Amino acid sequence: MKDIQLRAEILIEAIPYIMQFHNKIVVIKYGGHAMVDDDLKKAFAKDLLFLKHAGIKPVVVHGGGPEINRLMKMVGKEPKFLSGLRVTDADSLELVEMVLSGKVNKEIVSNINHLGGKAIGLSGKDAGSIKAKKQETSTADLGYVGDVESIDPHIIHVIVDEGYIPIISPIGLGIDGFSYNINADIVAGNIAAALGAEKYICLTDVTGIMHDIKDPSTLIHELSLEGARELLGSSVLNGGMLPKLQSCITALEGKVPQAHIIDGRTKHAILIELLTDEGIGTMIKGD
Amino acid sequence: MKDIQLRAEILIEAIPYIMQFHNKIVVIKYGGHAMVDDDLKKAFAKDLLFLKHAGIKPVVVHGGGPEINRLMKMVGKEPKFLSGLRVTDADSLELVEMVLSGKVNKEIVSNINHLGGKAIGLSGKDAGSIKAKKQETSTADLGYVGDVESIDPHIIHVIVDEGYIPIISPIGLGIDGFSYNINADIVAGNIAAALGAEKYICLTDVTGIMHDIKDPSTLIHELSLEGARELLGSSVLNGGMLPKLQSCITALEGKVPQAHIIDGRTKHAILIELLTDEGIGTMIKGD
Amino acid sequence: MKDIQLRAEILIEAIPYIMQFHNKIVVIKYGGHAMVDDDLKKAFAKDLLFLKHAGIKPVVVHGGGPEINRLMKMVGKEPKFLSGLRVTDADSLELVEMVLSGKVNKEIVSNINHLGGKAIGLSGKDAGSIKAKKQETSTADLGYVGDVESIDPHIIHVIVDEGYIPIISPIGLGIDGFSYNINADIVAGNIAAALGAEKYICLTDVTGIMHDIKDPSTLIHELSLEGARELLGSSVLNGGMLPKLQSCITALEGKVPQAHIIDGRTKHAILIELLTDEGIGTMIKGD
Amino acid sequence: MKDIQLRAEILIEAIPYIMQFHNKIVVIKYGGHAMVDDDLKKAFAKDLLFLKHAGIKPVVVHGGGPEINRLMKMVGKEPKFLSGLRVTDADSLELVEMVLSGKVNKEIVSNINHLGGKAIGLSGKDAGSIKAKKQETSTADLGYVGDVESIDPHIIHVIVDEGYIPIISPIGLGIDGFSYNINADIVAGNIAAALGAEKYICLTDVTGIMHDIKDPSTLIHELSLEGARELLGSSVLNGGMLPKLQSCITALEGKVPQAHIIDGRTKHAILIELLTDEGIGTMIKGD
Amino acid sequence: MKDIQLRAEILIEAIPYIMQFHNKIVVIKYGGHAMVDDDLKKAFAKDLLFLKHAGIKPVVVHGGGPEINRLMKMVGKEPKFLSGLRVTDADSLELVEMVLSGKVNKEIVSNINHLGGKAIGLSGKDAGSIKAKKQETSTADLGYVGDVESIDPHIIHVIVDEGYIPIISPIGLGIDGFSYNINADIVAGNIAAALGAEKYICLTDVTGIMHDIKDPSTLIHELSLEGARELLGSSVLNGGMLPKLQSCITALEGKVPQAHIIDGRTKHAILIELLTDEGIGTMIKGD
Amino acid sequence: MKDIQLRAEILIEAIPYIMQFHNKIVVIKYGGHAMVDDDLKKAFAKDLLFLKHAGIKPVVVHGGGPEINRLMKMVGKEPKFLSGLRVTDADSLELVEMVLSGKVNKEIVSNINHLGGKAIGLSGKDAGSIKAKKQETSTADLGYVGDVESIDPHIIHVIVDEGYIPIISPIGLGIDGFSYNINADIVAGNIAAALGAEKYICLTDVTGIMHDIKDPSTLIHELSLEGARELLGSSVLNGGMLPKLQSCITALEGKVPQAHIIDGRTKHAILIELLTDEGIGTMIKGD
Repeated sequence: MKDIQLRAEILIEAIPYIMQFHNKIVVIKYGGHAMVDDDLKKAFAKDLLFLKHAGIKPVVVHGGGPEINRLMKMVGKEPKFLSGLRVTDADSLELVEMVLSGKVNKEIVSNINHLGGKAIGLSGKDAGSIKAKKQETSTADLGYVGDVESIDPHIIHVIVDEGYIPIISPIGLGIDGFSYNINADIVAGNIAAALGAEKYICLTDVTGIMHDIKDPSTLIHELSLEGARELLGSSVLNGGMLPKLQSCITALEGKVPQAHIIDGRTKHAILIELLTDEGIGTMIKGD
Repeated sequence: MKDIQLRAEILIEAIPYIMQFHNKIVVIKYGGHAMVDDDLKKAFAKDLLFLKHAGIKPVVVHGGGPEINRLMKMVGKEPKFLSGLRVTDADSLELVEMVLSGKVNKEIVSNINHLGGKAIGLSGKDAGSIKAKKQETSTADLGYVGDVESIDPHIIHVIVDEGYIPIISPIGLGIDGFSYNINADIVAGNIAAALGAEKYICLTDVTGIMHDIKDPSTLIHELSLEGARELLGSSVLNGGMLPKLQSCITALEGKVPQAHIIDGRTKHAILIELLTDEGIGTMIKGD
Repeated sequence: MKDIQLRAEILIEAIPYIMQFHNKIVVIKYGGHAMVDDDLKKAFAKDLLFLKHAGIKPVVVHGGGPEINRLMKMVGKEPKFLSGLRVTDADSLELVEMVLSGKVNKEIVSNINHLGGKAIGLSGKDAGSIKAKKQETSTADLGYVGDVESIDPHIIHVIVDEGYIPIISPIGLGIDGFSYNINADIVAGNIAAALGAEKYICLTDVTGIMHDIKDPSTLIHELSLEGARELLGSSVLNGGMLPKLQSCITALEGKVPQAHIIDGRTKHAILIELLTDEGIGTMIKGD
Repeated sequence: MKDIQLRAEILIEAIPYIMQFHNKIVVIKYGGHAMVDDDLKKAFAKDLLFLKHAGIKPVVVHGGGPEINRLMKMVGKEPKFLSGLRVTDADSLELVEMVLSGKVNKEIVSNINHLGGKAIGLSGKDAGSIKAKKQETSTADLGYVGDVESIDPHIIHVIVDEGYIPIISPIGLGIDGFSYNINADIVAGNIAAALGAEKYICLTDVTGIMHDIKDPSTLIHELSLEGARELLGSSVLNGGMLPKLQSCITALEGKVPQAHIIDGRTKHAILIELLTDEGIGTMIKGD
Repeated sequence: MKDIQLRAEILIEAIPYIMQFHNKIVVIKYGGHAMVDDDLKKAFAKDLLFLKHAGIKPVVVHGGGPEINRLMKMVGKEPKFLSGLRVTDADSLELVEMVLSGKVNKEIVSNINHLGGKAIGLSGKDAGSIKAKKQETSTADLGYVGDVESIDPHIIHVIVDEGYIPIISPIGLGIDGFSYNINADIVAGNIAAALGAEKYICLTDVTGIMHDIKDPSTLIHELSLEGARELLGSSVLNGGMLPKLQSCITALEGKVPQAHIIDGRTKHAILIELLTDEGIGTMIKGD
Repeated sequence: MKDIQLRAEILIEAIPYIMQFHNKIVVIKYGGHAMVDDDLKKAFAKDLLFLKHAGIKPVVVHGGGPEINRLMKMVGKEPKFLSGLRVTDADSLELVEMVLSGKVNKEIVSNINHLGGKAIGLSGKDAGSIKAKKQETSTADLGYVGDVESIDPHIIHVIVDEGYIPIISPIGLGIDGFSYNINADIVAGNIAAALGAEKYICLTDVTGIMHDIKDPSTLIHELSLEGARELLGSSVLNGGMLPKLQSCITALEGKVPQAHIIDGRTKHAILIELLTDEGIGTMIKGD
């Protein structure tokens, strides 16, 4: 009986956090290890389910990760890179879109719905949610790699208000009628801003933003928006962290009060960040 | 971090129960020790708060307990009893109503609202929710002691749908214009039926229904509606348990699927009953 | 037949007034003789009923009057006063709250509902409607005597829109978790302002504001907000009238167009004020 | 002051009647002297206004009366009758429709709206409310004289729910595309049935149904539906009363609880019938 | 099959126009030849029906045309004119109103509803939609000839949102209680402005605004609001075109983006203007 | 001008058909040649756009066609068949789902949205719309080939009511947590039934159901539900037609009034079927 009462008290300790985010939207960028490890995948689905039933409204944007490379290898297609950026020709885009919208997206949906949840997978092309434009780079033509032109959040609000969890793949439709693959971090930050989210959480495979990526003790616990902009301009960060930090800045500039870069390798990282006092990873505060 | 993850998992283990009662009404008869002990009072308020934020809709009916006797003593009024039933003359009723609707009711409201919740105290007279009739007894005139004539649940639904927790004192208005004090158990069972509640929970100061009240090992874990009716007709039960069992039968006859008589002296008894597999007290199942 | 036609014409003469207040909220401070005399009590309930069925939305705030003293006498408690203000210790507050929320409030509700109306009694603690703060006085500690910190009118609007008449007792909940007794006039003026009422009517036991309280011919028929403020600062008014005038000023400053201080000893004073051309008492006009 | 209080009490005496018809539809057949006399016309408009502001929903169906003959005389057209029924050729119908929908209807609307009310004039052709069929008579072709084929009450409900008073002229559209003039009594009874009215009131120029039309003491105060059918079949009634009685039967067969045939020459007959105990004219009760 | 596919393609070519006006209000001034010729009348009704079923919301304001003179002749009343304006005494107004609201209006309604549409005929007096004032002229008293004082578009929005097509006759109610006949062009322009229409179309019996009315090659295809104002002040236009141009200016000043004066003698002129690229008549563009 | 008027008349001729299907759901099984040929693909998107803007609610279910084989070939996977049914192991299912939900589905969405429409692509797994079960065959284990266990149409109704066109891929989620590929015809018929569609249209690559597939003159123009069941049991039909006919029977048994099997190679086949009198293909009528 003691043990059960302890469990009741743990539930009760979550109340203030649940009250804080009640009826609020939390946008989560999902990717990396948390999307590969079977244990973490299940824990992630359960975290979403708990949030939803506690009256919080999670919205997920996911990347494609290793699955894209796997399919390209299967069809014998050699990935090409220009200055570190993937060149995406029409054939590659077809494969990328199939993996993102047809495999990764639907697997997340399956995991949630199999638990009794109600997730809906959307591509950014659906309902014209993400209008894309070709990414402009001075150096080379990257093909069907795009940027966010604008977000129409209407269908996402509809779905969320009906009690579903939207799972969004980062493909947008250009006004030229072509589909574009967009960096999922960038999409997530823009969607957080367009939805008026209460919080934006970006999962990574490191502890957070660190001055020295090899030294966990250099973790930056908190940043101002101003500080985040400076850090982005400096040469401290490694390549993968740049779009993540940029997406946080985009969210904050869109009036999201707080953004977090946290370690997706930690089981239940989402629940821990949202429903406990435990500050994990790096928090960036809006003005 | 391990500890925090454990706490996240405890939250997650509550999901199936939360899903089961999502958007459902749970009627709780509150009284006895749980309404006297300061620790239990706070735990009760927190239990309600958690339920509410998990999308469950608690409705509370309370009795008056020792407070009525305390005020009667203060004004120097001698309680009178006839065959074990309190005789309630006009002066007594005035005191009873003040204690129930003006003190006990408002204290429960204070406790919840002070935690950030949104409770509303109602008397059964408010909005004509409880229509009362004078209790007919063959032997004697008990005065302003009433029975439930009918329940109009409209305002309770309105309040619940607006996100408030209704706290109801068991005073009804007769068609004769007089107020009547009604047994709180009986009111609670009728309200559970009228609201179409998913569950009715009656707090007592014992472990549940026992064949021998002095021997906890004789606790009856489960009863059918049929079995409950038989038990009510037998002479096994002591006086205080009779209206509680009757209120469960009333609820079940009104299509509430399950009723529970549980030990209000157990901290967080409500959460334990609703959100764990731990079967405490006596459960009575509807047909 | 002549007589009946005359009665029809009297109904018809009320049309312009009914049209003026259709769907509008009228806040009434109820107290004094009108709350003591049986005849006046019934007439008051009927006035509210007529307003409600003519599409006008009455909201009542009441005081406690002689009932508080009566109960204190019953329990042998001596009222204490400091510079004319009642000192309210914890024991007194318990009695005050029981009388206000458990007796006076519920009696008004009974009177209306017995006629077929639909009243709901609320304490300012219910739904967190009245947030209180301890009254600051330079001279002495008055105990649990409070002031209005803020009003949350949401539940009152909900109740009114559902067709009920809210009856409000002037008890507020402090952020310290304690209950506070607040002057009912002050509560009424604040609630009129918070609800965006069309009119605020304050019942008294005199004809209105008079230059000389003993000489009815000195009745002030109309005042500007400016004039009301000046009068409040002067030493013309006796003690009881000060919070009434202050509550009118509070209402007008909160954009209520008109406030009235009228004689509650006049049967049907409310209907007369609202539905005839007869100007009774003192009217104070907003800017 | 006495006088004013008396007036307040007259208002209050109307409460039970207002409560009875609150939010209910009352269909009134308007015609005869009440539609000719200037004083009665104004009184009628005021009666409607009072009902509307007391939350009752009046719906008016009117005839054309002497105005049709006046216009026919003006254009030099001779009325033709066959066995007492007006023969309506295409030219006559044009005049009839202009008078009904363009003059009488709009004058009633003007009278109400000039008082600050909100009336809307409709023909039965508008929104396809009245589907007509040619009246079948064994003896002769009456031209564009129709019967009610069916009523579509949707637009009337919309208008009433928006707070307007619908005024309906008895012209219907046939499936042959022609317009038909229908007896206004018959239209009114059918509309009362289709709207699910709480009461149907038919104004006439006599005191009610009388065994001997010359002897007021033979007034029938109350009839059952059964009795009304028998009376219709007998030869007691004069011509004008037949369609009125028929319309009452139609309303009652359509589940309207009560129908009244009352004297429209009595000023405020509507208010008197609805808001006093005074039984005037003949009441016919449904089963 | 070829032919059918061609027809499908014609439907499809209308899509961009339908999308442009989807859920938008288009106000049409209906009059002249289009209201006299049987073929054009039917085509007009069908045009409205198509618009309505394509999700566009037509609102029609009509004049009276030759019908007024016809009835006046029938009753032997001589039309009087002062400086080219009809003098409308009380008797004339009665006839004018009967023709407008009782004949022309109801005929348009019949034509639409006979096709299965859902039209509702309203006078500007209904629901107080058009508040009128006596037209002020320096030279003479024209009697009951009015101007628009104000428009209350509420009932029109209600009717349109319920899926009906409102047909409005240009009679307004003055605050003096008298009815006034108002120029239908002027009413239409004001209603387009009050409704926030997307387009205002005025049907005439000429090709559009021409520099030389006898020379079709002088048709002005497009005008700015500025240009329209200048043209109105010049002496180029003949009498009948003046109120039409004025009504366009009124609409554009009320933020209607475009107004059109087109030839109502062209069958399906409305559909052609709205659903093809074919620019017919004169278009006036707002700022 | 003549030509334009002709086009206007073609629009108008569509009115009765538009009225018939206004606000009604039409479920279309999309596949075969119509999903391969670029011209037909565009025509199909435009047909949907027209229907949507004419107030009709199209819902599309698509198959995968040759695209599945293409990807399997690309990854070097040999298709296996057992008694003519594709054996779908886990690896195949992954590819099938990617093609259906990630490529074909999103291409249809792109085509519609690029034209300015608002389509949303869903898998049957999204929102738990299609609950699948493993297909039971007596002879062999086909792997992840499923049947419809049940349809939850809620999200489809939500999407349609918000003005979007749902495009559904035939993948369902089993209660075992595995995904299943279901025959698209079968899914479409079940969805038509679950949505209460007004019509179900199945596109094929032949003219309709023919007694002799090589002889177009043996086309069956109309079948009763009874006749369809008999035909299904006979050995007349070739393999591909069997699930199509079965899906029609499923739709009709689910109270869809009419089902059509039409030739998707005909440009604008959908519009022709819905908006003209031209009966193409085979119509099957419900009881």
